[in-house]
Amino acid sequence: MAQDTVNRRLAAILAADMVGYSRLTQLDEAGTVARQSACLKELVAPAIKELGGRLVKTTGDGFLVEFPSAVDAVLCAVKIQREMAAREQDMPSDQRIVYRIGINVGEIIYDGDDIFGDGVNVAARLEALADPGGIHISKSVFDNVKGKLDLGFANLGAQKVKNIAQPVPMYQVLMNPDDVGKVIMAAPKVSRRGLLGPRNQRAWWPFSQNHW
Amino acid sequence: MAQDTVNRRLAAILAADMVGYSRLTQLDEAGTVARQSACLKELVAPAIKELGGRLVKTTGDGFLVEFPSAVDAVLCAVKIQREMAAREQDMPSDQRIVYRIGINVGEIIYDGDDIFGDGVNVAARLEALADPGGIHISKSVFDNVKGKLDLGFANLGAQKVKNIAQPVPMYQVLMNPDDVGKVIMAAPKVSRRGLLGPRNQRAWWPFSQNHW
Repeated sequence: MAQDTVNRRLAAILAADMVGYSRLTQLDEAGTVARQSACLKELVAPAIKELGGRLVKTTGDGFLVEFPSAVDAVLCAVKIQREMAAREQDMPSDQRIVYRIGINVGEIIYDGDDIFGDGVNVAARLEALADPGGIHISKSVFDNVKGKLDLGFANLGAQKVKNIAQPVPMYQVLMNPDDVGKVIMAAPKVSRRGLLGPRNQRAWWPFSQNHW
Repeated sequence: MAQDTVNRRLAAILAADMVGYSRLTQLDEAGTVARQSACLKELVAPAIKELGGRLVKTTGDGFLVEFPSAVDAVLCAVKIQREMAAREQDMPSDQRIVYRIGINVGEIIYDGDDIFGDGVNVAARLEALADPGGIHISKSVFDNVKGKLDLGFANLGAQKVKNIAQPVPMYQVLMNPDDVGKVIMAAPKVSRRGLLGPRNQRAWWPFSQNHW
C-alpha cells in the first residue's frame, strides 16, 4: 500500500508575485530591487512570523510561504495587502510595488525545507489570476475559513488553470469593510476583454452563501 | 483581524468506533475489554506509528487519531481494517471486533494534546455512517488522495449529518483489489430500509471520475 516514499503533509500555501516587476526594474533596477528587499524584510517577513508561517523561498519578484493553518494564511495575506497599500500610497501609481496573492490548501510533498506538488502549483495559478493588490483562494481554503474571519468572498466558480487537469473552484477575498460576512457570486466572464470590461471592474451580484 | 486567539492547524482526522460494543460487552465484559485493549496495543498503535499519526485519545469503544497527511491517514485506516479482518476471522461472527472508520481533512482547534472543532466532528459523523469494517472519507480527503493510492472510491454524494449545518460530500473507500483505480457513483438511497435493501448491499453503477 505504500505506493510512494515521498513525505507529504497538509498545508496552506501562499504564493505572491509582484505586479509589473520587469517594467519596474526597467524604470529603476537598483531602486526596485532595494525597495522589494525592504518590503520583504520590514513588512512581509514580520507578517509571516506573526501568523505562524514559514517563508519557503523568495524569487526575484515574489515569495512562497507555508502555513499550518488556512485561517492564518488568509489573515497574513490580508495584512500584507493592506500594509503594502498603505506603505506605497505616496509613490506615483506606476512605480508602486503591488503584489498578487494566491492561497491553496492541499497535501504537499516536502524534501528538507522545499515543497512541491499540485498543492503548490495551484497556489501559483491562483496568484496569477488575482487582481493587483488582491487575493484569490481555492475552495479548499474557503471551506476552512468561512465564518471565521471579518472578510467577504466572491465565488468565481471553477476555472481551468494552466497544467492542472481539473478546473479549480476559487474565490476572491473581499477586503472592504462593507463586504464583511458577504459571499457573493461573480458574474460570468465572457472573456478577459469581453462584455464585462477590464479585469478589475467585474460585475458582482449578491448571492446566497455556499451555492457552490 | 485576529478574530480569535485559538490555535488552528490543518490535519487529517481519523475516528474509529467498535461495532456493537454494548452487545459484545454484555456477552463478555472482561473478555471484550481485554481483546479491544490488545487490538489497540498490538495492531492499531503500530499502524498509527508507522504512518506518522498521533493517537489523540481512546474511548471505551474507539479512538481518535490525527495525521499530518491525508494519504497517510487513509493508508493507516486501510491497514487497520485489513489486519483486523485477518486477526478476527477465526472468531464467531457475532463476537468479532469490527471497526467503522471515518476520516476528514480540515482545520482543527488544538489545546495541548487535545483537538476540537467541526473538522473533528465531521470525522465522527463519517465514522457513524461507515459500514462495519469499512471507511468513509469526506471529499476534502478524497481530493487529497485521488490518484495516489491503490484503492477505489464510491461517491456517496453530499449527505446531511447530525449537528453539521452543511451537507457533507463523502466517499466510501473500496478496498477490494478489483476496485483499484475506480471511482464509482453510489445509487441514490431511498431510505435506509428502502428499495435498495440492507445498508451494506447498496447498488453501485460505474460512473466517470470527478462527477461531483
